[in-house]
Amino acid sequence: MDSVRKPKVAVVMGSDSDYPVLKGGIKLLKDFGVEPQVLVCSAHRTPDKAAEFASKAQENGIEVIIAAAGKAAHLAGVLAAYTVLPVIGIPIKSSTMDGLDSLLSTVQMPAGIPVATVAIDGAENAAILAVQILAGAHPEMFERIREYKQELALKVEQKNDQLAKRLLDESEA
Amino acid sequence: MDSVRKPKVAVVMGSDSDYPVLKGGIKLLKDFGVEPQVLVCSAHRTPDKAAEFASKAQENGIEVIIAAAGKAAHLAGVLAAYTVLPVIGIPIKSSTMDGLDSLLSTVQMPAGIPVATVAIDGAENAAILAVQILAGAHPEMFERIREYKQELALKVEQKNDQLAKRLLDESEA
Amino acid sequence: MDSVRKPKVAVVMGSDSDYPVLKGGIKLLKDFGVEPQVLVCSAHRTPDKAAEFASKAQENGIEVIIAAAGKAAHLAGVLAAYTVLPVIGIPIKSSTMDGLDSLLSTVQMPAGIPVATVAIDGAENAAILAVQILAGAHPEMFERIREYKQELALKVEQKNDQLAKRLLDESEA
Amino acid sequence: MDSVRKPKVAVVMGSDSDYPVLKGGIKLLKDFGVEPQVLVCSAHRTPDKAAEFASKAQENGIEVIIAAAGKAAHLAGVLAAYTVLPVIGIPIKSSTMDGLDSLLSTVQMPAGIPVATVAIDGAENAAILAVQILAGAHPEMFERIREYKQELALKVEQKNDQLAKRLLDESEA
Amino acid sequence: MDSVRKPKVAVVMGSDSDYPVLKGGIKLLKDFGVEPQVLVCSAHRTPDKAAEFASKAQENGIEVIIAAAGKAAHLAGVLAAYTVLPVIGIPIKSSTMDGLDSLLSTVQMPAGIPVATVAIDGAENAAILAVQILAGAHPEMFERIREYKQELALKVEQKNDQLAKRLLDESEA
Amino acid sequence: MDSVRKPKVAVVMGSDSDYPVLKGGIKLLKDFGVEPQVLVCSAHRTPDKAAEFASKAQENGIEVIIAAAGKAAHLAGVLAAYTVLPVIGIPIKSSTMDGLDSLLSTVQMPAGIPVATVAIDGAENAAILAVQILAGAHPEMFERIREYKQELALKVEQKNDQLAKRLLDESEA
Amino acid sequence: MDSVRKPKVAVVMGSDSDYPVLKGGIKLLKDFGVEPQVLVCSAHRTPDKAAEFASKAQENGIEVIIAAAGKAAHLAGVLAAYTVLPVIGIPIKSSTMDGLDSLLSTVQMPAGIPVATVAIDGAENAAILAVQILAGAHPEMFERIREYKQELALKVEQKNDQLAKRLLDESEA
Amino acid sequence: MDSVRKPKVAVVMGSDSDYPVLKGGIKLLKDFGVEPQVLVCSAHRTPDKAAEFASKAQENGIEVIIAAAGKAAHLAGVLAAYTVLPVIGIPIKSSTMDGLDSLLSTVQMPAGIPVATVAIDGAENAAILAVQILAGAHPEMFERIREYKQELALKVEQKNDQLAKRLLDESEA
Repeated sequence: MDSVRKPKVAVVMGSDSDYPVLKGGIKLLKDFGVEPQVLVCSAHRTPDKAAEFASKAQENGIEVIIAAAGKAAHLAGVLAAYTVLPVIGIPIKSSTMDGLDSLLSTVQMPAGIPVATVAIDGAENAAILAVQILAGAHPEMFERIREYKQELALKVEQKNDQLAKRLLDESEA
Repeated sequence: MDSVRKPKVAVVMGSDSDYPVLKGGIKLLKDFGVEPQVLVCSAHRTPDKAAEFASKAQENGIEVIIAAAGKAAHLAGVLAAYTVLPVIGIPIKSSTMDGLDSLLSTVQMPAGIPVATVAIDGAENAAILAVQILAGAHPEMFERIREYKQELALKVEQKNDQLAKRLLDESEA
Repeated sequence: MDSVRKPKVAVVMGSDSDYPVLKGGIKLLKDFGVEPQVLVCSAHRTPDKAAEFASKAQENGIEVIIAAAGKAAHLAGVLAAYTVLPVIGIPIKSSTMDGLDSLLSTVQMPAGIPVATVAIDGAENAAILAVQILAGAHPEMFERIREYKQELALKVEQKNDQLAKRLLDESEA
Repeated sequence: MDSVRKPKVAVVMGSDSDYPVLKGGIKLLKDFGVEPQVLVCSAHRTPDKAAEFASKAQENGIEVIIAAAGKAAHLAGVLAAYTVLPVIGIPIKSSTMDGLDSLLSTVQMPAGIPVATVAIDGAENAAILAVQILAGAHPEMFERIREYKQELALKVEQKNDQLAKRLLDESEA
Repeated sequence: MDSVRKPKVAVVMGSDSDYPVLKGGIKLLKDFGVEPQVLVCSAHRTPDKAAEFASKAQENGIEVIIAAAGKAAHLAGVLAAYTVLPVIGIPIKSSTMDGLDSLLSTVQMPAGIPVATVAIDGAENAAILAVQILAGAHPEMFERIREYKQELALKVEQKNDQLAKRLLDESEA
Repeated sequence: MDSVRKPKVAVVMGSDSDYPVLKGGIKLLKDFGVEPQVLVCSAHRTPDKAAEFASKAQENGIEVIIAAAGKAAHLAGVLAAYTVLPVIGIPIKSSTMDGLDSLLSTVQMPAGIPVATVAIDGAENAAILAVQILAGAHPEMFERIREYKQELALKVEQKNDQLAKRLLDESEA
Repeated sequence: MDSVRKPKVAVVMGSDSDYPVLKGGIKLLKDFGVEPQVLVCSAHRTPDKAAEFASKAQENGIEVIIAAAGKAAHLAGVLAAYTVLPVIGIPIKSSTMDGLDSLLSTVQMPAGIPVATVAIDGAENAAILAVQILAGAHPEMFERIREYKQELALKVEQKNDQLAKRLLDESEA
Repeated sequence: MDSVRKPKVAVVMGSDSDYPVLKGGIKLLKDFGVEPQVLVCSAHRTPDKAAEFASKAQENGIEVIIAAAGKAAHLAGVLAAYTVLPVIGIPIKSSTMDGLDSLLSTVQMPAGIPVATVAIDGAENAAILAVQILAGAHPEMFERIREYKQELALKVEQKNDQLAKRLLDESEA
């Protein structure tokens, strides 16, 4: 991980309007020592580029692909069609249907071509899942995931303490 | 229409298991004097073939594409990405989600790349819509559509008469 | 297209409150050299006018009808009942049910009377679909659609470049 | 009610395949001394007939209209557009979407043109509602409704007794 | 209608927070010469009052009951259980589930006890439906409904003209 | 528990057609030493009986009420309105809407009048929940619940062993 | 209740961001003389703590557990797995899916391990349900519930009076 | 892959009734040279075993966990809480809600603890995804995945040929 070459994860979004949702996940990848390769690429507007990108992803050193799209979210499925790499799909909530369309379009893949789907707008979970997958070939990352989970637990404890204090203050007030 | 060359409509299905649903629509196309070009082609399992088919559809003489798929139904959208021809999408109901996944995956296309979506399992409507579209360049087909609509109306009238008779028989019985 | 008479597409809305959603689609039609005939006409409040409009649409030179309505969106279906022309339906999202009511009311048409349904609030897609349909009889429009798709692709590329630059700036900052 | 002329209720169905669902409701109307006028009439396949029927329903002596349809169930709404009579809508469950499409297409009517919607496949409730509406002008019917409700209550009591007996038998066995 | 006693319609709401949604419907009832009897009464918080109100509604001169409630909207169904009068249900959209809970709780009544359900938040439609029902016993009201429908149609025409003018201005600008 | 008087739980169903779904739960109550008082009672067909039953449930020695109903499932909510006892609601799946209507009608109760809702058709869970509630006043029941949970765990282990054996047999075959 | 030791109810939330939704319910518990033990504890981030908390809840004097969580809301179910105490689940509405995900994740528990589910964001109902359950072992609480229900009814009456006055003022204005 | 030790994937099911759905996926894992460790283990009935299994999965040589469960499907999420390994979730369709409850309970995980969700009942996709993940550390598996995808494509081609022949036969008949 701290070696010369960092593991690479592609983060592909169907529209740059998805970037604010993805930002936290991209940062998280960097925190884990991953080099994110971020690009805008549409299954419907730039299908050739999507096909080419996915076809060459592995030889370009990418180990996991994260794809985010909304509405009839075909991006993750289309990339998965062109690669042997694991593809993680993030359904993006758009202005109608509360994310249900994106979720079903991403997760309900036919037998043989899976997309590893995370929660609607779940960019951070996509990042952690990518790191968990990378850790197979980069076992030193498991330790970082362990630390991350401990930090998550610690934060819950801290919030628990803060809430306890707040409740105490309120009852004494 | 009655000329040497019939207008061609492609009927593409993601899986041959969709054929029973599509059969009626294919027959209807023939009834309207259309030559259906039927093929099995998957957006996820044979993406290159789907891309190539759609890219060359127009130069191969196809005027309208009908695409049928279930679950995360990307087929119509993927074909639409590669062609300037109108693409009609038929969401196929599969074993879960009662067709809602197929419908949303087909209809909720992003701006710029439409899919003309018909009812879940609505193969006959896809056929009629294809004929209505063809009729723009083959105006003699409008007359056939008119006749078809009159036949539909006539059938409703006949069923109305049969029901009236049946009700009369029941009340006299 | 550049001839004296432009192809005509009717854009019918159930309520003038739908106009802001439709505006972009109407502009797009004009960009493609189409003459939009825009009208407010309700399947429920002015049913006779809707019936008359649809009945005479073809003889009035209209080649495609776009109908937009919300809630129990019957407008597209009702117009389709009275014409042999292809009818495109835009389900409009209203204040309840997140557009699902409009979508199902528009798309789930019975066999024989199709409505070519696009995404909820998908006015631009309705416009492009109308142009794709028109292009059958006006083949010079295919070239414009091709250009439009190239512009779409170009925009994606530009946004990809902008995002790359932004990410670079952020990482250097 | 027992006079020369019985009150008339129209029972309109979009397809004769809906008849089995409606049969119980039609019988119930007769039990209440109502003369049902049953017809098959489609909002999409025979729109003129539907319009004419609804327009003349009142002058033809009909006091309430019941309309049953499935999928994008426009029938009740279309009839309501053409009449001042109260229109009751029965959403019919078809092969996809579990009746949700029919329900939303029937109930979500725009302001000004109501459809009195009952449960999916709720033909008996449509019949009772029609009788409750008729009773305004035929007050002697209220007594029959009262009796009907007492019979309903009695049946519940009988089933309660049967279940009690059954449970007793089972526990003694 | 202009006689000494106006027809009475009860408008019952489960919570006074529903009043803003109902206001337009109440006004519409008055416009039609109906005397609305408005009350707050909860199926769950004041069940005895609800039962008593519905039980005595008819003898108190009420001819139609409108009931509005949100979430697990039992009010209309509970009132219907205690009266032979027609009960109209308005599902109120609350902070979760987008009105679907209210709609299903109101419309899916068991056989024998119907609720005439209108659109989510559809107070005006409830009012018109009430007037259509009243008109059975007060036939002079039919004329007013006819006028109301003509006004609705006229407003659509006016909005159509305004939009036409606006589009003309925009294209000339 | 082993004393003279067993704790009593009422099991109320809206229709005797719900009994097959409830049977397992009733048996489970008996297994836990509870005396189930089973009755058919409809919120809509026998509202007075439902009200009276719930009003007197506590003085009749009942400690928990279980109510099962389908469609617009008002029964649990109506009983809850008339009692201070905890009311458990079982949404029953009927022929349309896959249980969603029953679930929402049961669980989405307004503030102040809760219904403790269990899974759709979840009669066994209603029984266990009733026992957990009873155990507050009958602490000896906690031991039985503990045993029951151990049996559940044991069954999982047994099934795990059986599956292991089956897989072994299959791989050796 | 007025004795030295108050009955204890645990209120567990998956995230401190749920606190604003729960605040009213916690206050209500106190109003009923219950000592709420409030904690933040996540089924996924602090699973050991959740398991330990639930395992020891009974011996720590807790009589009922209320658990609130959003999205894939596992918290209530996980706590229920480790305790014989009744567990009440509050599905929290988060930014997508309008609470449906939380509701289904909370209520659809497998046979044997019930969660007593209340309305989405229904913290007050969870509190009242907890009090109803506690009242089994603390019968003096029934009186307080009775008073609470009378207050609820009184408030409805007051709001009814206020609305009546408001309507009168409006009609006189 | 053909070495002494095969990569291990755990396949955990909440109930042995899920086995028929999973069978194909388990076979597929073996076809890819993976050793599946299959067990029945419930998040709610055997929570300690689930926690212990997941806690020790990595040290026991497991590289990926597949978890299948229905209804309020907590199993995948609970296992994910206790391990740093990637967890794949298969939502199992049960008798109500058409799989939507299982899907939402599996996929909508909170930030930090992802579950890689595949289609409802999508056991084969879970297997392929597991293999894609394993291939990171076992790169020789990529070649097998490539072959598998070619076989999928070949099957589509064969079915296309069969359908073409069938259509030819039908048209010649």
